[in-house]
Amino acid sequence: MITIHGMADSGNCYKPRLLMALLGRPFRHAEVSWRDGGTASKAFRQKTPIGKIPLLETGDGRFLPESNAILCHLGEGTRFVPDDAFERARMLAWMFFEQYSHEPNVAVRRSLLCYPEMADVATPERLASTLRGGNSALEVMEERLAGHDWLVGDAPSLADIALYAYTHVADEGGFDLAAFAGIRGWLARVTALDGYRPRDWLPGA
Amino acid sequence: MITIHGMADSGNCYKPRLLMALLGRPFRHAEVSWRDGGTASKAFRQKTPIGKIPLLETGDGRFLPESNAILCHLGEGTRFVPDDAFERARMLAWMFFEQYSHEPNVAVRRSLLCYPEMADVATPERLASTLRGGNSALEVMEERLAGHDWLVGDAPSLADIALYAYTHVADEGGFDLAAFAGIRGWLARVTALDGYRPRDWLPGA
Repeated sequence: MITIHGMADSGNCYKPRLLMALLGRPFRHAEVSWRDGGTASKAFRQKTPIGKIPLLETGDGRFLPESNAILCHLGEGTRFVPDDAFERARMLAWMFFEQYSHEPNVAVRRSLLCYPEMADVATPERLASTLRGGNSALEVMEERLAGHDWLVGDAPSLADIALYAYTHVADEGGFDLAAFAGIRGWLARVTALDGYRPRDWLPGA
Repeated sequence: MITIHGMADSGNCYKPRLLMALLGRPFRHAEVSWRDGGTASKAFRQKTPIGKIPLLETGDGRFLPESNAILCHLGEGTRFVPDDAFERARMLAWMFFEQYSHEPNVAVRRSLLCYPEMADVATPERLASTLRGGNSALEVMEERLAGHDWLVGDAPSLADIALYAYTHVADEGGFDLAAFAGIRGWLARVTALDGYRPRDWLPGA
């Protein structure tokens, strides 16, 4: 059985948990956090030199970092990956967008506001730039979701799981989704998927 | 024939050009730059709401953004994508690492130092944080490349192309590769690949 090393509260760590829940597949959760120094420990660095979570551990002891690469690996051959080659590429484009344009703003601003450890680096400049960058990313999503149910094609894909992870808690980062009706409808569609589990759900709990 | 819309000088835009050169495949280059407002124009935004380069245009007029998604699409079924599913996932992990941990530091610091338009935002704090972040990313690469010829498996993959793009000009961002012997050997191996072309090469030029 696979193990997903990560934090219960992290959106990046929620991504593979949500996919496994939607697929109805069993897995183990191993709590590792940057908040208590867990990701900086020698034992964890031996598993992954970059020292980041989530980290996938396969049943035979191999390790894979990067939340969206984990989604691609666990999702391969499932209904969450489009059959068409160009649609698959579009799915990946949204996932790279998520890591470059969305997460560093929407998720980071949430961390700056919610984690007391981050108070020192939560400067007015950084709060302003992540607000601006996050709203730009939400506008790009809205342009698609105002007229479509899903980010790619006409069915949920790994792109929707990747972008749901932090968009559904954007309000905790101080983002107002009132002007983003397409995004709000899409969030409700993800929540209604068969097998959906919320962020704080952990297997066996 | 495909068209790659982008800037001659950008590492992100160089990635798909280098892949096409290595594959010996023809393509068109269409110069679009953020430096002269080209990416902000209405005509360009109609092609891609995010307004970023590179942008792939297929022969039948479809568009795909995000440099690493373009690499995955153009590279599908070629020798630059590993046959093994787990190695493919590791390739993607390096590519997400490139966009999250490497490019925002190594490439952005180069932009801050090299483009006069960026002088206003090249604050001491930003130069310090990108230097720190870039060196951390280079250390993660060095840990792999000190003992291996390539980032994944024993052959060059899309991951090597993605990370070569800005690592080979890291010095222009003020990064000193003297302590990274593994990276320097790997840069030389990429340059020696059959079909390799430098960043300023454009098709038909």
